[in-house]
Amino acid sequence: VRVDVLLTPGEVTPAHVTGRVVVVLDILRASTSIVTALRGGARAVIPFVATEDAVRTAKQYARGEVLLAGERNMVAIPGFDLGNSPREFTPERVKGHTVLLTTTNGTRALLSVEDAHEVLVAGFANCAATVEYLRTHLISGRDVTVLCAGTDGAFSLEDATCAGRIVRLLVSSGLFLHRNDGARVTELLAHRYGPDTGRLFADASHARRLAEAGFGADLDVCGAIDTVPLVAIYRDRAITRLDVPSASAA
Amino acid sequence: VRVDVLLTPGEVTPAHVTGRVVVVLDILRASTSIVTALRGGARAVIPFVATEDAVRTAKQYARGEVLLAGERNMVAIPGFDLGNSPREFTPERVKGHTVLLTTTNGTRALLSVEDAHEVLVAGFANCAATVEYLRTHLISGRDVTVLCAGTDGAFSLEDATCAGRIVRLLVSSGLFLHRNDGARVTELLAHRYGPDTGRLFADASHARRLAEAGFGADLDVCGAIDTVPLVAIYRDRAITRLDVPSASAA
Repeated sequence: VRVDVLLTPGEVTPAHVTGRVVVVLDILRASTSIVTALRGGARAVIPFVATEDAVRTAKQYARGEVLLAGERNMVAIPGFDLGNSPREFTPERVKGHTVLLTTTNGTRALLSVEDAHEVLVAGFANCAATVEYLRTHLISGRDVTVLCAGTDGAFSLEDATCAGRIVRLLVSSGLFLHRNDGARVTELLAHRYGPDTGRLFADASHARRLAEAGFGADLDVCGAIDTVPLVAIYRDRAITRLDVPSASAA
Repeated sequence: VRVDVLLTPGEVTPAHVTGRVVVVLDILRASTSIVTALRGGARAVIPFVATEDAVRTAKQYARGEVLLAGERNMVAIPGFDLGNSPREFTPERVKGHTVLLTTTNGTRALLSVEDAHEVLVAGFANCAATVEYLRTHLISGRDVTVLCAGTDGAFSLEDATCAGRIVRLLVSSGLFLHRNDGARVTELLAHRYGPDTGRLFADASHARRLAEAGFGADLDVCGAIDTVPLVAIYRDRAITRLDVPSASAA
């Protein structure tokens, strides 16, 4: 079986998608906001690239049923209920709601791999739960692709390091995995930073920009490892919590 | 000043090109074949994506003036004078000739950055000469982009490791450089492999495929460091040797 890591969305090919389980990573901050919302009891998170599409979709729901969330240039969108800071996705705010989230990088990445056997959303927060779920797929012979959403099409250090953490956990669990060059370089990153996501974020340009924009506290949340033991699955245009034994303790 | 590394051709944006010096790396094997040809006395190397275009252009030259070179799926093209093995680009074969070389990855990368202030071609073979030339640009305030050609649009370990070698040499020469996330990860690769390109190629999927196809001896040439002290510049659709003081000893 194979685990391939794609460092940028531009590397996606049909061979990386068809019949595979694809894990999409967008550490800062969409992945973390999504899994936090699902842990907090959100019914689903529906990702949109365009703000207008999210607003239009919101009108199809009963008042109070949905929350509009998202950011442009890191800042919350005027008139929206929430920004894209995982700290906002508290149970008090999201429980029982469907969250319409506008993001650029993560959403584009999700849309590019919709034809996969399964699509998951992961971050440092739900790394272990995701790895455990991937293991069962790999053991049954299904290949896995880890897709780093990156930033505006470019490589980002934090997504790649989380990808490497996933690969290393899979390898150390005793699976023999064929890995592409992308997987190998991310393993090196995961080894370099280990669980020290503070050091990682000090080097990562997107993290530095967030800190300069006043979102430094988000970095603590996005860098916290295995705080959300659930698997997030994307299908039929919505991200929901997957009920698997390993996630049921969440 | 900035040094940005783009790990894949899909990451190229106008901001990475306009007004910058761009260095294109395609270690296996185009970069190495090109600098070897220039060292051997080739007048120029003209890169083509399509075999037909190379053949058509050849007809515009006097008989014996040009050499057709290139490969498809690693193997030399029937009827061509040379493949894409740097070992074939000996002075006996190339001296005084213009080489029309068909490659996919490297040529596409070159064409995507044609609007740069200057475009260079580099590999392990001419790393030090290229770095010395880049230094003069950086000192005068000009930003540099290192573009890894990759393999079929995907990340390749050997291009990224050579990029990291270039970045590390620039940094260790005392320049204070702003670096993107791509540059940082390549520095890690260069640190990991150091001058041990044999170990690098053992991990790199393209290198393993070449070895399996019988081109293992090419890896020794492509992994040899600083054997060709010249700067290769691409302009007006041709790659030629740049006459700079540091390269004049070649």
